[in-house]
Amino acid sequence: MHINSNKVENFASPATKSAWHEEGTSTMTNATPMPPLEVHKVCLPPHRTTVQKFRHRLSEIFFPDDPLHKFKHQTPFRKFVLGLQFFFPVFQWGPNYSLKLLKSDVISGLTIASLAIPQGISYAKLANLPPIVGLYSSFVPPLIYSVLGSSRHLAVGPVSIASLVMGTMLSGTVSYNEEPILYLKLAFTATFFAGVLQASLGFLRLGFVIDFLSKATLVGFMAGAAVIVSLQQLKGLLGIVHFTGKMQLIPVLSSVFKHKDEWSWQTILMGLCFLALLLTTRQISMRKPKLFWISAAAPLTSVILSTILVTCLKSKLHGVQVIGKLPKGLNPPSVNMLYFSGTHLALAIKTGIITGILSLTEGIAVGRTFAALRNYQVDGNKEMVAIGLMNMAGSCSSCYVTTGSFSRSAVNYNAGAQTVVSNIILASTVLITLLFLMPLFHYTPNFILAAIIITAVIGLIDYNSAYKLFKVDKLDFLACLCSFLGVLFLSVPLGLAIAVGISVFKILLHVTRPNTVVLGNIPGTQIYQNLNRYKDAVRIPSFLILAVEAPIYFANSLYLQERVMRWIREEEEWLASNNKSDMKCVILDMTAVSAIDTSGIDTIVELKKMLEKQSVKFVLANPVGSVMEKLNHSNVLESFGFEGLYLTVGEAVADISSAWKAQP
Amino acid sequence: MHINSNKVENFASPATKSAWHEEGTSTMTNATPMPPLEVHKVCLPPHRTTVQKFRHRLSEIFFPDDPLHKFKHQTPFRKFVLGLQFFFPVFQWGPNYSLKLLKSDVISGLTIASLAIPQGISYAKLANLPPIVGLYSSFVPPLIYSVLGSSRHLAVGPVSIASLVMGTMLSGTVSYNEEPILYLKLAFTATFFAGVLQASLGFLRLGFVIDFLSKATLVGFMAGAAVIVSLQQLKGLLGIVHFTGKMQLIPVLSSVFKHKDEWSWQTILMGLCFLALLLTTRQISMRKPKLFWISAAAPLTSVILSTILVTCLKSKLHGVQVIGKLPKGLNPPSVNMLYFSGTHLALAIKTGIITGILSLTEGIAVGRTFAALRNYQVDGNKEMVAIGLMNMAGSCSSCYVTTGSFSRSAVNYNAGAQTVVSNIILASTVLITLLFLMPLFHYTPNFILAAIIITAVIGLIDYNSAYKLFKVDKLDFLACLCSFLGVLFLSVPLGLAIAVGISVFKILLHVTRPNTVVLGNIPGTQIYQNLNRYKDAVRIPSFLILAVEAPIYFANSLYLQERVMRWIREEEEWLASNNKSDMKCVILDMTAVSAIDTSGIDTIVELKKMLEKQSVKFVLANPVGSVMEKLNHSNVLESFGFEGLYLTVGEAVADISSAWKAQP
Repeated sequence: MHINSNKVENFASPATKSAWHEEGTSTMTNATPMPPLEVHKVCLPPHRTTVQKFRHRLSEIFFPDDPLHKFKHQTPFRKFVLGLQFFFPVFQWGPNYSLKLLKSDVISGLTIASLAIPQGISYAKLANLPPIVGLYSSFVPPLIYSVLGSSRHLAVGPVSIASLVMGTMLSGTVSYNEEPILYLKLAFTATFFAGVLQASLGFLRLGFVIDFLSKATLVGFMAGAAVIVSLQQLKGLLGIVHFTGKMQLIPVLSSVFKHKDEWSWQTILMGLCFLALLLTTRQISMRKPKLFWISAAAPLTSVILSTILVTCLKSKLHGVQVIGKLPKGLNPPSVNMLYFSGTHLALAIKTGIITGILSLTEGIAVGRTFAALRNYQVDGNKEMVAIGLMNMAGSCSSCYVTTGSFSRSAVNYNAGAQTVVSNIILASTVLITLLFLMPLFHYTPNFILAAIIITAVIGLIDYNSAYKLFKVDKLDFLACLCSFLGVLFLSVPLGLAIAVGISVFKILLHVTRPNTVVLGNIPGTQIYQNLNRYKDAVRIPSFLILAVEAPIYFANSLYLQERVMRWIREEEEWLASNNKSDMKCVILDMTAVSAIDTSGIDTIVELKKMLEKQSVKFVLANPVGSVMEKLNHSNVLESFGFEGLYLTVGEAVADISSAWKAQP
Repeated sequence: MHINSNKVENFASPATKSAWHEEGTSTMTNATPMPPLEVHKVCLPPHRTTVQKFRHRLSEIFFPDDPLHKFKHQTPFRKFVLGLQFFFPVFQWGPNYSLKLLKSDVISGLTIASLAIPQGISYAKLANLPPIVGLYSSFVPPLIYSVLGSSRHLAVGPVSIASLVMGTMLSGTVSYNEEPILYLKLAFTATFFAGVLQASLGFLRLGFVIDFLSKATLVGFMAGAAVIVSLQQLKGLLGIVHFTGKMQLIPVLSSVFKHKDEWSWQTILMGLCFLALLLTTRQISMRKPKLFWISAAAPLTSVILSTILVTCLKSKLHGVQVIGKLPKGLNPPSVNMLYFSGTHLALAIKTGIITGILSLTEGIAVGRTFAALRNYQVDGNKEMVAIGLMNMAGSCSSCYVTTGSFSRSAVNYNAGAQTVVSNIILASTVLITLLFLMPLFHYTPNFILAAIIITAVIGLIDYNSAYKLFKVDKLDFLACLCSFLGVLFLSVPLGLAIAVGISVFKILLHVTRPNTVVLGNIPGTQIYQNLNRYKDAVRIPSFLILAVEAPIYFANSLYLQERVMRWIREEEEWLASNNKSDMKCVILDMTAVSAIDTSGIDTIVELKKMLEKQSVKFVLANPVGSVMEKLNHSNVLESFGFEGLYLTVGEAVADISSAWKAQP
């Protein structure tokens, strides 16, 4: 049965305020006069076929931002140009590029290069890869991104988290020192799979899966990773030679203290001095954002200073470890090193998936942050394709996983970058370094790399966010804490899995145990609000008005049934103990019931039956469109009929009261 | 900052209808006069400490039905009596028990006994256990349940689904024919663990976990199981000796046709005749519920008839398999057969968990169904404890998993059972059978057991429900179909896991991609409704009113941000192409936003920032209590201030319009 006839006609004489308001409003003061009340019918949504609904659902899942909206109503040529711009954003900003923009981009490009070169070398060491791979990875990926990427401020290159995770996951099985070729092969293969995963997530428009890494999870995860990375740098800072490849807190700390005899006081002294210098410059730049260039220039300056120092004193400093000889020249091709069969393939895929997801999350978040600051849009799915293709290309040219780095992008933004051309400048600077300057790094000491890494990752520990989580949402804080402790004591994948599990559990818990509240009328208005929250709201005698604040699903339908019956029982007990008149009608406000399934419909039917047995009327107010549709399809509307559905609580109260008046 | 001051004071002259309604309501016809509009402030919920909130949350999770409410305000003696009644429902109905009730219970007890004895023997065979175990299981558990259980109509004993699952899971590893003692040990141990799980779920008040087996899942699962069970009975009906122990469709069917030479025409002929008889009686009872006793008496009658037939013709019927010799006497103790260490312990625990959950689901559902018919309450958690203790006791007295059976409970209800005494009568009848009548079953043929099982399980195939699912909710139907096919082609645990996965995925999908709708005003009222659904609703010029129909979580916050921006973009495009005045204010109706987390708060802040950059005002309407609390704790309320929060959309529109009027 479809309800189509006009409901208004069923109530020839609409109830007026005076007709129903007298009954029990002795407590209502300062009520302004109410207008005569009309009863509006509850509409079904416009009819759509299953195919139409399915298409709508799919388009909401995969194309919520309607990415092709620009193509509507355009000429074929314009569509072609727009398509070109869609796939290669370079065509969008390219035609308007000017010398003024170039000047800004050159300055910012050179600035991030001075940061990217020492960081690239350091992060490669974090991934247990040869330092030169870090520079290779700062050359090809920025070039690819500058053609495909749509963020104007993203500075592309290796990042700490992905480097760390790759290093620990691969080192758990293969040691770089023992099998360097296999290790390199696995690293490039993992990078390839990371790229494939990223590009396909973007291409299939499944980008929303990374949303399941909530901010709470990431705050905890990043802090845990930063602590581990910093502790691992004690290797370089203390000059320890034999160090664990593991990542958990306990093996790292025991490794530090087991090898006390390897501590080198010269390394420690110089390392601490440079660390103090770097941390001070970081503090200065944080206090005064205009002085961003101080912290941006500090790493390269420290590398130069420490290299000169070590070169001059090399005859006297035997304990100090240095990078050593680095090969000159451009990225060698590495297609032949991809590893598609063999015992370690599963490890490479697993590493690729986890580093891929993590680096994607960082890259997208960074891109969105700076896009929001400058008020332009970054299409998440397109960015994923760009980052994915960049990693696939990287894996074929001796690069490991890269993405947009938060610290370097911030410097890029502060230095005034206008377009992705700053990435081209970065790549050109790295190119010159690779071709001509590599011998200069021979005596660069390892401790300075450790100091640079610590300075970079210390910013990942975000106490403020953690404190805010604690203050605002205890369960979010729990997810944060679990991912922090999980990363620290278990492992990266396990810590992440636990945190995602808690986040999903939180959603399910909210669905399983939704809020139900009793509503009262705010005198003189048609507003019905939570009695517990609005002290001026008053109960309407003979009515119990309940609001359910969640969809009604199989997971909560029995709970809601029990809970509603408890509200009714408690109301009846209260009425009996206060000698009030009986409850004669229960109104269920469905405004916040955003969906219902078959179990939920059964609950509604069951409640109606149970209340009818107790001679209590049961009506629904304001069911949303999808709920109305399901009630209609399941023929429940028939049992409610016209008299059991109202558009607002106020109309329900007025209409039912007037019906009672009419038949005394 | 906490908002406590009175908002009303901020607007000295409340906007009147005439002041704001003129602006753009030329399309509004038949509008009744509106009253002067007051602006109400949005309240924070009453302050509660974290501990109070935590306690409230826990009590909602574990004690939603407030089970101790009867104990409030009672004398200590009364509390003791209530406590006794709480733990042993027998004290509740015992004192009022009368001869009249006893008469009804004796009749219904004898009726279900006539059904329980042949079914007990059949189901034990389904679990690959000796037939006598089925009778043992119809003796001890009903006695225990009659003391602890609170359902008046539940008929306790072995059931088809749990028997089938136990049989297939154990037979996958251990064969009863080869290692009968080990198989029995595992069956009793699994029963013990099932009982422990059931009792602890009830005791820890975690009963809601079984809610995750939604009705859709169960419809599919039961149908799949019924198909498999029926096909497996071809063994008995065709007289096949060598049959697979597996449960999937393909091995069962291939087993039937591989052993064509073992088919026995005498067995087939007699089996089909009795099956036709049983199915006919079933049809008669379904058509006329008053004739329920026809189908209730049919199994025992068929057993007696077929046994007489086979006994008389035994010299001529060589191919017909019979039950054989059954031991006389009561349940032997089996505590010494529980198996707590050894290679198969994991199998026993796994079997216990799955059969425990399944039998619990059936028992609770059956109890609730009949309680609803007679309008009494069954406390799910207490029932779980009763069923759990009954299985633990059963495992120590040679019983396997038992629960409330749907078919026998229905007969019990129809036969007029008034209390659990009918279970005592059932047990007494089984006792007499065990002591004196066992030799009579010697020549009972296997085909009659197969026919009884088929007749029983065929009722589990519920096309009507499946069709209703298809009509009302396609995703629910998908879950149903997956659990059906999963059980048929994969395995019971996998089929169930897939179906639960789909159900949870459905919840997450709804949260990830919630509905957003544009609201318009129904002329002459303060009602704002979906423009797409209510054709008489009209847009308010200069306003865009959006409603979000879901909690805002990390999983949907980015989607919502993009989606809201798209609504705004589309609105602006529409306004520009129709030469309408600019959009100046976006109102977000938060009525249906039942919760928010830190990511959601960031989205609200982000939207506000983005809209402010476009000089568009952004206000919230009617945030619910928990959302207000979080907005307050995260200091977002400060940025909205008094002018960014309204109790209703109507007040927001009126107030903002009048403010624009005031500053032209």
